[in-house]
Amino acid sequence: MIYAGVDVGGTNIKIGLVDIKGAIIADNSIKTDKNKDYKGILEDIVADLRLLCEKAGVDYHDIGGIGLGVPGVVDSRTGTVSYSANLGWRDVPLVHGLEVASGIRTEAANDANCAAWGEYKFGSSRSMDNAILVTLGTGVGSGIIIDGKLFDGVASAGGEAGHMIIVKDGKQCNCGLKGCWERYASATALIEQTEEAMKKYPDSLLHDVVKENGKVSGRTAFIAAERGDKAAREVVENYIDYIATGLINLGNIFHPNAIVIGGGVSNEGPALIEPLEEKVNSGLLASEHNPKVRIIGASLGNKAGIIGAAALVM
Amino acid sequence: MIYAGVDVGGTNIKIGLVDIKGAIIADNSIKTDKNKDYKGILEDIVADLRLLCEKAGVDYHDIGGIGLGVPGVVDSRTGTVSYSANLGWRDVPLVHGLEVASGIRTEAANDANCAAWGEYKFGSSRSMDNAILVTLGTGVGSGIIIDGKLFDGVASAGGEAGHMIIVKDGKQCNCGLKGCWERYASATALIEQTEEAMKKYPDSLLHDVVKENGKVSGRTAFIAAERGDKAAREVVENYIDYIATGLINLGNIFHPNAIVIGGGVSNEGPALIEPLEEKVNSGLLASEHNPKVRIIGASLGNKAGIIGAAALVM
Repeated sequence: MIYAGVDVGGTNIKIGLVDIKGAIIADNSIKTDKNKDYKGILEDIVADLRLLCEKAGVDYHDIGGIGLGVPGVVDSRTGTVSYSANLGWRDVPLVHGLEVASGIRTEAANDANCAAWGEYKFGSSRSMDNAILVTLGTGVGSGIIIDGKLFDGVASAGGEAGHMIIVKDGKQCNCGLKGCWERYASATALIEQTEEAMKKYPDSLLHDVVKENGKVSGRTAFIAAERGDKAAREVVENYIDYIATGLINLGNIFHPNAIVIGGGVSNEGPALIEPLEEKVNSGLLASEHNPKVRIIGASLGNKAGIIGAAALVM
Repeated sequence: MIYAGVDVGGTNIKIGLVDIKGAIIADNSIKTDKNKDYKGILEDIVADLRLLCEKAGVDYHDIGGIGLGVPGVVDSRTGTVSYSANLGWRDVPLVHGLEVASGIRTEAANDANCAAWGEYKFGSSRSMDNAILVTLGTGVGSGIIIDGKLFDGVASAGGEAGHMIIVKDGKQCNCGLKGCWERYASATALIEQTEEAMKKYPDSLLHDVVKENGKVSGRTAFIAAERGDKAAREVVENYIDYIATGLINLGNIFHPNAIVIGGGVSNEGPALIEPLEEKVNSGLLASEHNPKVRIIGASLGNKAGIIGAAALVM
């Protein structure tokens, strides 16, 4: 059996055909046409899915289900998108709409939840029945697996760990609160922290790295730190400490088997993961009496959205 | 059928006989004899339980099960107390020990989890399948109900929301971390905040209230605030804001039906609950698109431990 996974973003929509083992048979990306209403966008998705089937030699009618990952608040029980800032959607009956347009059984969930589900079914937290995915990107997203099921709270409005307050009365967040974890631990925050260090240390290697790469990115501080730059090391250490603070909170609340780190920053690998695992476990309550919470990198990369969405309907 | 609920504390052990509707038929309190090992304490519990049965006219052999609530890390699946600072226990096979001593089926859980379970089965969060109990006492405890089941993480090491960091690099906590929620939102913290205000404002009514009552308590600031004292109002407002910060975090992560507030401070009633409900819901992500998270006072009071423990075996 073949399943379709659709990762709906504000700019692009990634569509893939996924087999029962989580392997992508074929995939494609189309533009999100914001001039169209949601029904128009669903028609684009179905048209591309038919093309993809042709290309892959798969009979469209053999698709066992379509999973949708959407940025925003998606009530996974009713299939309704309550709210998506990126897509400008509000109370959109997405699952019903796609079932009508495609003739195929459909389910939907928040994109971070799809990614968490993908890592649990086919990625680095495979077979860990209690695992949390944290994505460090533009913001900080999270998806929570409890006892082998996706947990997202009443009306799927939970699972928003990026908006934990870790610095009371701290930096202003877009959500209206102050001091949210994502204001300190996202890639966006890392860039901000790197820029602040560059102003403070005009002789730092950070400036050289930026000249080589054309701009400040989430990699800048890590690269300069590897070259031994003191200011960059300070940025990296503080940034890891901010990530660890939120992970300790999740560890003390959930004590999962593992927390999976995804998003662009997770590509730093052991330089990020190893200090995090040490800091988090030494911060957990009564840690010497309890099993360790493993910190591991995500393994599905930017295909986690497609694979996780497809896994919703498997 | 009658069930026994045992709330094991570092100073006293409360023992009760509870019917299927959650009503206490008879209860008693004995001293926790710290000179004895856990087996000696379990013998004391069984002896008192037999006395209680006699007093209540209940046949000991009619007890359908014994539930134990214990402060510390209790693996509810294995019935082992991994660690209890209050009792000085470490890796104690408590459930097995009590089953041997009593001849009755036994289960055990952390005391805050028992209280959460009691409120869910018979108290103010009855029939709310997603609810969190937060107790504001010496520390801040928490118990989490997800989809009608007690959730406490791998090896029951989770559910420790009191040790969420809400002020990074903040006040030193006994657990080793800095800035834990309980350092700001417990009754202990409220007393500390009241004492600080008394030093700062020697003319405040706080001093009069303390003279009347003999000491600073968790009630002092609330009483003086009711009388219109400005310094006391500031203490109460800031304290409520600290509680709200942690509740917002739990709301964004879990989005439960309700968060139940227990512990001594919860006796303040609407003066505490109403501003909390307003602050929490205005702090939740996309709150206008989601169902409200209700904030409600616990209803089982200091019997929640007995009732919740008994409910474990019902």
